[in-house]
Amino acid sequence: MLNDDMYKLGSKRSTIRELFEFGKTRAKEIGKENVFDFSLGNPSIPAPKCVNQSISSLLDTLDDASLHGYTSAQGNQNVRHAVAMHIEKTQHTQMSEDYVYMTCGATSSLCITLRALCEKDDEFIILAPYFPEYKVFIGATGAKCVVVPFNECDFTPNLDALDKAITKNTKAIIVNSPNNPSGAVYSQKTIDDICAIVNKKQTLYSKEIFIISDEPYREIVYDVAVPSILKAYDNAIVCYSYSKSLSLSGERIGYIAVNPRAKDADKLYLAICGASRALGYVCAPSTYQRVIQACADALPDIEEYRKNRDILYSSLKAIGYECVLPSGAFYLMLKSLEDDSEAFSQRAKDFGILVVPADDFGAKGYVRIAYCVNTKMIERSITAFNELFDSYK
Amino acid sequence: MLNDDMYKLGSKRSTIRELFEFGKTRAKEIGKENVFDFSLGNPSIPAPKCVNQSISSLLDTLDDASLHGYTSAQGNQNVRHAVAMHIEKTQHTQMSEDYVYMTCGATSSLCITLRALCEKDDEFIILAPYFPEYKVFIGATGAKCVVVPFNECDFTPNLDALDKAITKNTKAIIVNSPNNPSGAVYSQKTIDDICAIVNKKQTLYSKEIFIISDEPYREIVYDVAVPSILKAYDNAIVCYSYSKSLSLSGERIGYIAVNPRAKDADKLYLAICGASRALGYVCAPSTYQRVIQACADALPDIEEYRKNRDILYSSLKAIGYECVLPSGAFYLMLKSLEDDSEAFSQRAKDFGILVVPADDFGAKGYVRIAYCVNTKMIERSITAFNELFDSYK
Repeated sequence: MLNDDMYKLGSKRSTIRELFEFGKTRAKEIGKENVFDFSLGNPSIPAPKCVNQSISSLLDTLDDASLHGYTSAQGNQNVRHAVAMHIEKTQHTQMSEDYVYMTCGATSSLCITLRALCEKDDEFIILAPYFPEYKVFIGATGAKCVVVPFNECDFTPNLDALDKAITKNTKAIIVNSPNNPSGAVYSQKTIDDICAIVNKKQTLYSKEIFIISDEPYREIVYDVAVPSILKAYDNAIVCYSYSKSLSLSGERIGYIAVNPRAKDADKLYLAICGASRALGYVCAPSTYQRVIQACADALPDIEEYRKNRDILYSSLKAIGYECVLPSGAFYLMLKSLEDDSEAFSQRAKDFGILVVPADDFGAKGYVRIAYCVNTKMIERSITAFNELFDSYK
Repeated sequence: MLNDDMYKLGSKRSTIRELFEFGKTRAKEIGKENVFDFSLGNPSIPAPKCVNQSISSLLDTLDDASLHGYTSAQGNQNVRHAVAMHIEKTQHTQMSEDYVYMTCGATSSLCITLRALCEKDDEFIILAPYFPEYKVFIGATGAKCVVVPFNECDFTPNLDALDKAITKNTKAIIVNSPNNPSGAVYSQKTIDDICAIVNKKQTLYSKEIFIISDEPYREIVYDVAVPSILKAYDNAIVCYSYSKSLSLSGERIGYIAVNPRAKDADKLYLAICGASRALGYVCAPSTYQRVIQACADALPDIEEYRKNRDILYSSLKAIGYECVLPSGAFYLMLKSLEDDSEAFSQRAKDFGILVVPADDFGAKGYVRIAYCVNTKMIERSITAFNELFDSYK
């Protein structure tokens, strides 16, 4: 009667959502001040001022048909131009509005891109640790998902394993740096090494292998640079979202940018237009398209995230926990104090700490801490982390 | 290298978009006042006042994290409650927020619903004349699309043909009333007749056959009632969009409502949750979710559409054209003056008139006139329609 895969997908509640709901219930029982909820990646800093200012100004100056009406399927031309100019300016690489497609955020950017590329027998490679929904999106195209493990010292991909994972059926590799869940930012050398491997395989198999760069955290980095994939690799497609950089996660606005130097870039862009049609995604939300035009160069004020990261990292290390200082995003990976990170996460709950077991992220033995929260909550949580640690002695 | 179907879909520009672009170019050549563009279904009346008022008020009263942050995947509970209450109040049928899923407009409502339902060998039936993208959305699920012809006198479906079209593989029938492109509004009797046929087939094949009611034009009707499918048929799913009723076509906001009386309604709702995840559609745009909460009961001021319809219909009839008075939406179907409506549409261009050949809508020999335009343009166009008519004498 129904599509069974979809029913199963809808029935299986995500661990993150379950923890979040648990936290709300628990707060009623023991008081909000005794629950330390690190489960959700919802930005805690306000949107840059230009966001709400531009909405007010649009309401004052634009007629309704222009503000709320359909834009062209790929997005308003002026909006795409502003995005292209921002990419050129910040990444020092060629871009034009003809290769930018406005979308309803990173998830739609990814779903459209995968659909545009996917042919029979295709394989897509993801690099652990990874955002769990990648598997869902790849599964929805019917393609095979191949996971490459990571180096525990710094959460970078294991390059030997990547080399071995690429086959004649590999269509693309999804790269996500700054990374969710690890907060790792791949260095220029890591990016160059990845590109060298993929380039070698392109030659070996006489075919194009794409790098899909999922980079919603591009602007959330602490004193490190985010290398440009567009500059480093010709057959690159960037999937972007303003969810994190402009704290607009609920508004569903982002873009796909095809490298103009990609093989048959024009055809690739048309396939993206086609996939958007097939998935029902044409015309990203119009008000927020115009907000992006006004705020394309806006940067988030990430000092609160940095402060949270520093307090959390130094406190956890002082207690005795194992973790790596994250250079970007707002996540930190904590080594579980027992092999089973699910059990560790369960025990943490007894101390009011909600952290996500990272098994679903391809990182067994770790939990993810999302520190996009109130700083005071982090400060209050340290005693609980201490008690949790002691409970394992 | 690419998915060929997606490339083809992206390369084939829609006739409507081509006409629209031609109109803009032509306006530069012969003056805007000499081009009569009836191609696009973009609402010409402003959004009800409560829309912009509620956006301003949200900016003033809500903190950024609440306004712009993620809502739950299926939409904010208060928003879904407001939608459910509106349905109960206006359709006098049971509904609750547990069966409402907020979406990015009617296209996503349809894509999600089709994906949630579709199994191997499934067939979906569409009733001519139909919105051309239905074929694209059904094609994207891999299912077969079956077309049922219409009665020329009033653009209602040919019920004998519907009866014959339903097979053991039929999963659902898409009903679209008020109809794009004909403007027809199915009467209670027509709806009851359709339901009786589908019910009979459910019994015959011992399986559920769904009616998917695509009803973005529900509120745009002229002195007729729109029967409630939820009331008339248990296995019904409503796909709604606020694009037309609130003139918010660019903002991508709508919903799916599952009939609580549908077989295994809870499972069906979960399959919809799953399909949304698989297509990357979770969490409809958050500001506009809240706008809907504030404006769930708002009605469009359709007097301008009515005036346009009346002027257009009476003038065209007076000239000698064949057409049926539409009772809803903002479209009117004109019988082409030659068998080939494509050629007729081409000739109309010589007189500055842009109308869409309805072959792609499953109505060979007709053109679609979208009268959601400035009334003065309609008045100016009558002379041109006269000259076009005379050119066929």
